Amino acid sequence: MTKKELIEQIKTKKSFLCVGLDPDLNKIPQHIKNNFEDVIFEFNKQIIDATAAYCVSYKPNHAFYEAYGLKGYNSLEKTIKYIKEKYPKHFVISDAKRGDIGNTSTMYAKAAFEDLNADAITIAPYMGKDSVEPFLQFKGKWGIVLALTSNPGAFDFQTLKINDAELYKHVLKTTSTWGNDENMMYVVGATKAEMLTDIRKIIPNHFLLVPGVGAQGGSLEEVCKYGLNNDIGLLINSSRAILYADASENFAKAAEAEAKKVQQEMSNYIK
Amino acid sequence: MTKKELIEQIKTKKSFLCVGLDPDLNKIPQHIKNNFEDVIFEFNKQIIDATAAYCVSYKPNHAFYEAYGLKGYNSLEKTIKYIKEKYPKHFVISDAKRGDIGNTSTMYAKAAFEDLNADAITIAPYMGKDSVEPFLQFKGKWGIVLALTSNPGAFDFQTLKINDAELYKHVLKTTSTWGNDENMMYVVGATKAEMLTDIRKIIPNHFLLVPGVGAQGGSLEEVCKYGLNNDIGLLINSSRAILYADASENFAKAAEAEAKKVQQEMSNYIK
Repeated sequence: MTKKELIEQIKTKKSFLCVGLDPDLNKIPQHIKNNFEDVIFEFNKQIIDATAAYCVSYKPNHAFYEAYGLKGYNSLEKTIKYIKEKYPKHFVISDAKRGDIGNTSTMYAKAAFEDLNADAITIAPYMGKDSVEPFLQFKGKWGIVLALTSNPGAFDFQTLKINDAELYKHVLKTTSTWGNDENMMYVVGATKAEMLTDIRKIIPNHFLLVPGVGAQGGSLEEVCKYGLNNDIGLLINSSRAILYADASENFAKAAEAEAKKVQQEMSNYIK
Repeated sequence: MTKKELIEQIKTKKSFLCVGLDPDLNKIPQHIKNNFEDVIFEFNKQIIDATAAYCVSYKPNHAFYEAYGLKGYNSLEKTIKYIKEKYPKHFVISDAKRGDIGNTSTMYAKAAFEDLNADAITIAPYMGKDSVEPFLQFKGKWGIVLALTSNPGAFDFQTLKINDAELYKHVLKTTSTWGNDENMMYVVGATKAEMLTDIRKIIPNHFLLVPGVGAQGGSLEEVCKYGLNNDIGLLINSSRAILYADASENFAKAAEAEAKKVQQEMSNYIK
């Protein structure tokens, strides 16, 4: 998907919501577990059908599938296939946080872009240029590099100062020269919204994938205040607040209502 | 597996070789591709049977399986199951370079330790403490944190100086307080062997997983000179030099000869 196509979707839907598909068997409603063979896929399918009108992106996090082994990996493949067939204009992010030496990263890129057919993959930057570049060689596909994450551990290394600039700023400055704003995005946690002012000075035009709104405590208003650019430039992820809005047979309706609520708040920021 | 058990294996076999199981369909001999349904598993099986006597560890890199989707993931599961059943004393490393926010890292830990039944998993440190700690909560299992990797990109961020010490040294100092040398190891590339002197000052007792000997150009002699400790303290990985020592029907014999050659060199360092 091109940047132009993504922006068109955002403007059409008046939404820059990404729904994180993190299925946890401990939280999936009992009636789904009782009635379906592929519980994870069925849960996702109902969540997707309920929220597709209010979001522009889906982000399955691989951990929640790999934890269930081969069966989980099968659910992941089916989930992305379902989205791509039924909602082909939605931007699918393989949230895998991969990164390895050059020839190995190429194999991860094939997994995400050729096997799974995702539009984007999240990437850990620690291993440097040859670990990131292979993800940027696929036409119409995106690498989304971790810059400043939403978790407490972000302050262990990402904010260490190197010559008066934090590590995450070096990551932004350096990695942004390896691609461009048509094939790269960055992860910036909503829990650090005030840091977006500095981040926008370094990468004014890149899209940011922003986790941490909702269950992790980040504020949509704060993120928009500091992070919006002329193209909107944000994909704001919500996972648990939508997926587990309700634990009963009503879960999909509750997820729809939650996604719609976020979309309506977002519509205020889209001219 | 405990540290004591690992050291016993090393002393018994006079080897601290880890064979990297990175199956690449472009390099697997044609007769395997012609004759077997699960080409990757059959290739691995023959490599494992040929090398088990000369190594103490196997390290499948997930990328080389995930690139082939569900079928590849199945081959990965079967490969580890085969090792665990036939060679239960071999230390199996899931080379996945994972890392995510706390609750998500727990799911990755389950994938590696419960589903795949690996003894260890490689971890990317960028996301900090809550991304690493979940891997250290499983009895008898190990987290292997990326410190200084073997690739050219290691010099992009890992060696940036923060208050006169490079980032990778901060990673060693900080992360080593989150666990101990009975549940943590570190990745240090053989291509940076001279840096092992400083590394051993920070973590004298931890095992190091050392990739980069062989195809990537690192020297076993140099790594041993700077990296050995009283427990040996090294697992030296070789992948391509062993797996693809020969592309004919003779590949397993050639892999055996290559593994034996490395083991014999290693035996000189084990009293």
